[in-house]
Amino acid sequence: LFTMVDAKAARPSLILTAEGVEAIRQSRQTRQTYSLFEASLEDAKTRVERSIAEGVLVPTPVDPGGGYTHERHKENYKVIHDAGILFQLLGDKRYLRHATDLLLAYAEIYEDLPLHPAQKRQSPGKLFWQNLNESVWLVHVVQGFDAIADALSDKDRATIEDHLLRPVADFLSLQNPETFQKIHNHGTWAAAGVGMTGYALHDPSLVERALLGLTGDGTSGFLAQLDQLFSPDGYYTEGPYYQRYALMPFVLFAQAIDHNEPDRKIFEHRDGVLLKAIDATIQQSYAGKFFPINDAIKEKGLDTQELVYAVAAAFTRTGRNDLLSIADYQGKTVLTGDGLAVARAVSEGAGQSFAFRTMMLRDGPDGDQGSLAILRMGDGPMAQTIVAKNTSQGMGHGHFDKLSYILYDNGREILTDYGAARFLNVPSKDGGRYLLENQSWAKQTIAHNTLVVNESSQFGGDWKRAQKYWPTVRYFEAGERLNVVSASLENAYPDTVIERTVVQLDHPAFAAPLLIDVMSASSQEKTTFDLPFYFDGQIVGFSGALQANTESRKPLGQAHGYQHLWVEATGQPTDGPIRFSWLNARRFYTLHAVAPEKTKPVFVRTGANDPDFNLRDQQGLILRSNGRKAVRFLSVIEPHGIYNPAAEFTAGSDSQIARIDHVFEAGADLIKIEMKTGEIIRLAISNDPDSEKTHRILSAGHEWAWRGFVTVLEEE
Amino acid sequence: LFTMVDAKAARPSLILTAEGVEAIRQSRQTRQTYSLFEASLEDAKTRVERSIAEGVLVPTPVDPGGGYTHERHKENYKVIHDAGILFQLLGDKRYLRHATDLLLAYAEIYEDLPLHPAQKRQSPGKLFWQNLNESVWLVHVVQGFDAIADALSDKDRATIEDHLLRPVADFLSLQNPETFQKIHNHGTWAAAGVGMTGYALHDPSLVERALLGLTGDGTSGFLAQLDQLFSPDGYYTEGPYYQRYALMPFVLFAQAIDHNEPDRKIFEHRDGVLLKAIDATIQQSYAGKFFPINDAIKEKGLDTQELVYAVAAAFTRTGRNDLLSIADYQGKTVLTGDGLAVARAVSEGAGQSFAFRTMMLRDGPDGDQGSLAILRMGDGPMAQTIVAKNTSQGMGHGHFDKLSYILYDNGREILTDYGAARFLNVPSKDGGRYLLENQSWAKQTIAHNTLVVNESSQFGGDWKRAQKYWPTVRYFEAGERLNVVSASLENAYPDTVIERTVVQLDHPAFAAPLLIDVMSASSQEKTTFDLPFYFDGQIVGFSGALQANTESRKPLGQAHGYQHLWVEATGQPTDGPIRFSWLNARRFYTLHAVAPEKTKPVFVRTGANDPDFNLRDQQGLILRSNGRKAVRFLSVIEPHGIYNPAAEFTAGSDSQIARIDHVFEAGADLIKIEMKTGEIIRLAISNDPDSEKTHRILSAGHEWAWRGFVTVLEEE
Ligand SMILES: [Zn+2]
Ligand SMILES: [Zn+2]
Repeated sequence: LFTMVDAKAARPSLILTAEGVEAIRQSRQTRQTYSLFEASLEDAKTRVERSIAEGVLVPTPVDPGGGYTHERHKENYKVIHDAGILFQLLGDKRYLRHATDLLLAYAEIYEDLPLHPAQKRQSPGKLFWQNLNESVWLVHVVQGFDAIADALSDKDRATIEDHLLRPVADFLSLQNPETFQKIHNHGTWAAAGVGMTGYALHDPSLVERALLGLTGDGTSGFLAQLDQLFSPDGYYTEGPYYQRYALMPFVLFAQAIDHNEPDRKIFEHRDGVLLKAIDATIQQSYAGKFFPINDAIKEKGLDTQELVYAVAAAFTRTGRNDLLSIADYQGKTVLTGDGLAVARAVSEGAGQSFAFRTMMLRDGPDGDQGSLAILRMGDGPMAQTIVAKNTSQGMGHGHFDKLSYILYDNGREILTDYGAARFLNVPSKDGGRYLLENQSWAKQTIAHNTLVVNESSQFGGDWKRAQKYWPTVRYFEAGERLNVVSASLENAYPDTVIERTVVQLDHPAFAAPLLIDVMSASSQEKTTFDLPFYFDGQIVGFSGALQANTESRKPLGQAHGYQHLWVEATGQPTDGPIRFSWLNARRFYTLHAVAPEKTKPVFVRTGANDPDFNLRDQQGLILRSNGRKAVRFLSVIEPHGIYNPAAEFTAGSDSQIARIDHVFEAGADLIKIEMKTGEIIRLAISNDPDSEKTHRILSAGHEWAWRGFVTVLEEE
Repeated sequence: LFTMVDAKAARPSLILTAEGVEAIRQSRQTRQTYSLFEASLEDAKTRVERSIAEGVLVPTPVDPGGGYTHERHKENYKVIHDAGILFQLLGDKRYLRHATDLLLAYAEIYEDLPLHPAQKRQSPGKLFWQNLNESVWLVHVVQGFDAIADALSDKDRATIEDHLLRPVADFLSLQNPETFQKIHNHGTWAAAGVGMTGYALHDPSLVERALLGLTGDGTSGFLAQLDQLFSPDGYYTEGPYYQRYALMPFVLFAQAIDHNEPDRKIFEHRDGVLLKAIDATIQQSYAGKFFPINDAIKEKGLDTQELVYAVAAAFTRTGRNDLLSIADYQGKTVLTGDGLAVARAVSEGAGQSFAFRTMMLRDGPDGDQGSLAILRMGDGPMAQTIVAKNTSQGMGHGHFDKLSYILYDNGREILTDYGAARFLNVPSKDGGRYLLENQSWAKQTIAHNTLVVNESSQFGGDWKRAQKYWPTVRYFEAGERLNVVSASLENAYPDTVIERTVVQLDHPAFAAPLLIDVMSASSQEKTTFDLPFYFDGQIVGFSGALQANTESRKPLGQAHGYQHLWVEATGQPTDGPIRFSWLNARRFYTLHAVAPEKTKPVFVRTGANDPDFNLRDQQGLILRSNGRKAVRFLSVIEPHGIYNPAAEFTAGSDSQIARIDHVFEAGADLIKIEMKTGEIIRLAISNDPDSEKTHRILSAGHEWAWRGFVTVLEEE
């Protein structure tokens, strides 16, 4: 370790490298400029010039997230970072001066700072209320320092190293061992900050601390995090919202490692798991936004700064031209050699549409803790997409949502996931923290498109218990016209097994793919099973009579999220199929359900027991089966028609399906979809992963035979 | 009349002219093509080719709006129109053949058709459920005929003229005198169809019937409509949603008149009212969508086909380059010489941003029936815009919304108007008609941002009575930093006078303009006054304690729309100022209200008594004053801050205003806004239109003096 670091002293050498600087200077000298790069350079200039005009503002830390001092220190780390890099790229000494002044101002106060007055209980910082922010601050600031270090006077450099960077690195590691040793994204940020400081200060002990943990034995630290936080498929257990955040310190520190110690082959580590993780992060998005599973802010998407870094790093290392379409969508890139390469390739028109695909991302360090299945049908980024969440709990930010799914179609979220109850950085909304309703509603099972047993959440709503179990993926198959994923869940409720098979079927009889969903459960006792469908749009049709609560409304229940649902209307218990249509923007959707006998449809809406107006408005239809030990719900979701009020054009607002029958026999499901045209589509699900076996089912005097887990049956 | 028509026989001569054809052919022969025009040409080709592939489909009329035969006959008129024009422009005889076949197929059946089986009670058609659709059909079809007439055999031409076009024209006029003689957009469409048929068939009697009405005395017909349906400012009394629809037959028929009888100078009629109406239609939009006042579908906007025609006609006749930005937004143009000119100018980069401006559109044929005031502050199409609706009732589609306003800011509707309760062409939603909730909710006064007296709608909700009265506009002024409109309403409630002054103030202390609103009313009896603010967004702050109805909800009232409002929460009656903040997408808004003593804030949400889920979700805050004879509400709406969860950046989520005081003395309002910085802004409203008089008000020992209706006072 020692010798390698000593051998690689040419600064800068973290994300921006001396070679990158040379390439950028040369490109600009020969007037070969590229719009993505220039736009990013202009952004940085604007930021730094504004800061120069404002002067050196390093206020005493007082405010929590969203407050003035919090935002000021956030802005300062970006300014120091950008000023250092601009000095390297443009040579303007005003940028050197400003970065130096800011760093010295921090060096002046940092060591004497107490813990932040608005400290979070568990992991306080000094500049910020939590040390996570302090790690992020260090990761950026040390890059700015690295860019100007050789131009500093020895005295200034020593002051900044000894009274700022090293103290921050020590604070984040030695003085916060709990965070630092955690196998968690907070730990990765801390490791990245400490390790990058090690490279910048030519201090191998800091690098070793970052890589192998405080004890030096590798049980914690960056490498352990890389081994344990991502699954072999590059899935991060907390889900995409945290994945894109967790990815950043991995991507940044890995680049610094690669630039300083290429022999570590960090990007090849674990069969290239970091590059897989970057791909997986992009795969977990629709229409530019991340799937909002677990504690997720729904607005977050591919244009986030974290992914700008990731795309540049991945493009250099893979040459994948389809990453360029993401860079183009982002509209910016990083001010490094990698960023230059991305900008040049985009300018030269080398970009291709990103290869979104059907895939299963296994969860868990060894890939055996369930999975996130992403089923896609159709071309391009707007292809119909089903996200089946059969993952493990995902720690404290996980939701009790196993076997749930989200349906995206026609560019929009059709069957929705609520995401998190949180207004990021809004002081009046509990300081921008996760709201109480995140726990009481957003995390609960009833807030998701999955089965709820006896009005209680999976694992009793106890995430630590939930952390020990995960669904078993029974089957996954991706095909040209048929995708399927099937999983079972055994420990979420006492003596209860739940299974769900989700099929995405592209059939010529339909303009858009169908979602076919068989959800079953069996228990030892007579049970209440609730199967919710949270839809976005306006209700335009329902098959049975509804008793609407027009003059008064009550909550559906008392706990586990039920207290937040107003009962809007209730249908009669029915034995026949249920048909429910809604209109989402420009397309209609019909849910056809063949539910257990005496199933009662209940229309609900969020907003009950929400005295502070913390919940967003969300409607749902719950299919409620009461007093049975075992249930089997067949649901078919059919997109249809066009609604275009601007052009005064509406067509196909009625379902094309006349009738659906469901036979379950000898472990197999036979689903018969009868079109209004008379055409019949039969789907058989054997529920048997053995592809060799022949399955038979008798229906209406006809014996059907097939092989495989799921098949469209053709008449002989 | 006779001689002029005879003199102008060179076909085509309706919208597309022989000169236009020549210009287009020449332009294409010299390969000077322009993308807007070519895109529109491609659209037409696609439509006609698809129809040729499908064959001649002229089904017996059966279905209401949205159904198959309805949509087929709609599509057919476009096909006949486009095929005729394509034949002229491209010379391809396949288009001639297809247009001819369709026309002959219609000629075969039309005369024997009974009234449509799903006829609307008042004005049935034969091809369609209402004759309005039939008029629209004729306006298009006759253009297709006009384009191919000279290429037809004498026999075919005679068949089409005698058994289709003339019978349709007679059906729409002689056999439907009630519609034809109505001063109403249905009448205009009928007149346009009949008149254009007159020109195409070289039959001056049809032209005269269209221009002067059935009796020929000009009491009805196109000219009467042009005189009576638009105000001198080009405002159409039903509002912009119907204006853009009503505009089309005016624009089309006027062009046909201009091409056949230029001496009529129809575009100069009434001081150029038609061109004013086109401009007014565009002015009545924000972010591309029309102001949703009266019965309006909110999705309708500037890209509607009606405006494509209007923009091309206006560009040719005015040369206004700012119309080109609208054409560019539309992404298409018409296939005429005017359209070619638009496309060429757009291609050559001649376009300028549309000149949206602050203006008052007077209502009524003589401009003395109230007005629509549009206050704008800021640059470009996203400038903050306040729409103050002080117009007359606007007939049967009018809402009881006098003195209400809409606030747009930052590209979005902030204080909203519900628009219509209707799902256009959706069969399951009452056939796509206006829903019952349009009457019971959308039209009612409580559905709007205006004062409601004793829980009842203006004019008792009787539009025929409402039609007789309108607000008096007391004052209007447009300035660089201050816009103001003030109006009073006397007859909406017994013995009650209501006045409202709306000020838009751009002050350097604020990032965005303030809306300052003084609403007053006086009555003879103790009265309940409700002042609602319907907001879009999430509630993020409220100044007082709220009693939230967390476990059960009841409607606010029993009738006049109150039955549709759930009471979500109620505040304590308060004497102090009320402060309410919400978050809309990326910006925060705070309403500061200084209300009468003991005013009770009530948060409401639509959805009560809505058994068919016909209402959209809409939240509002109602300020309720109970038991006073006179009230004066001061409301200041302050946009502030940035919310950007994607970039994890939030700033300025708190109002910058510390306190607001309101003094009303000797008929004048003194409003003191105290900023958190200590800065004080004083606004004085004299309520006196006399600009010469000096007004004085004493406040806290200081006497303020000023001239004018409204002024920002400066300390001496
Ligand atoms: Zn969730
Ligand atoms: Zn309205």
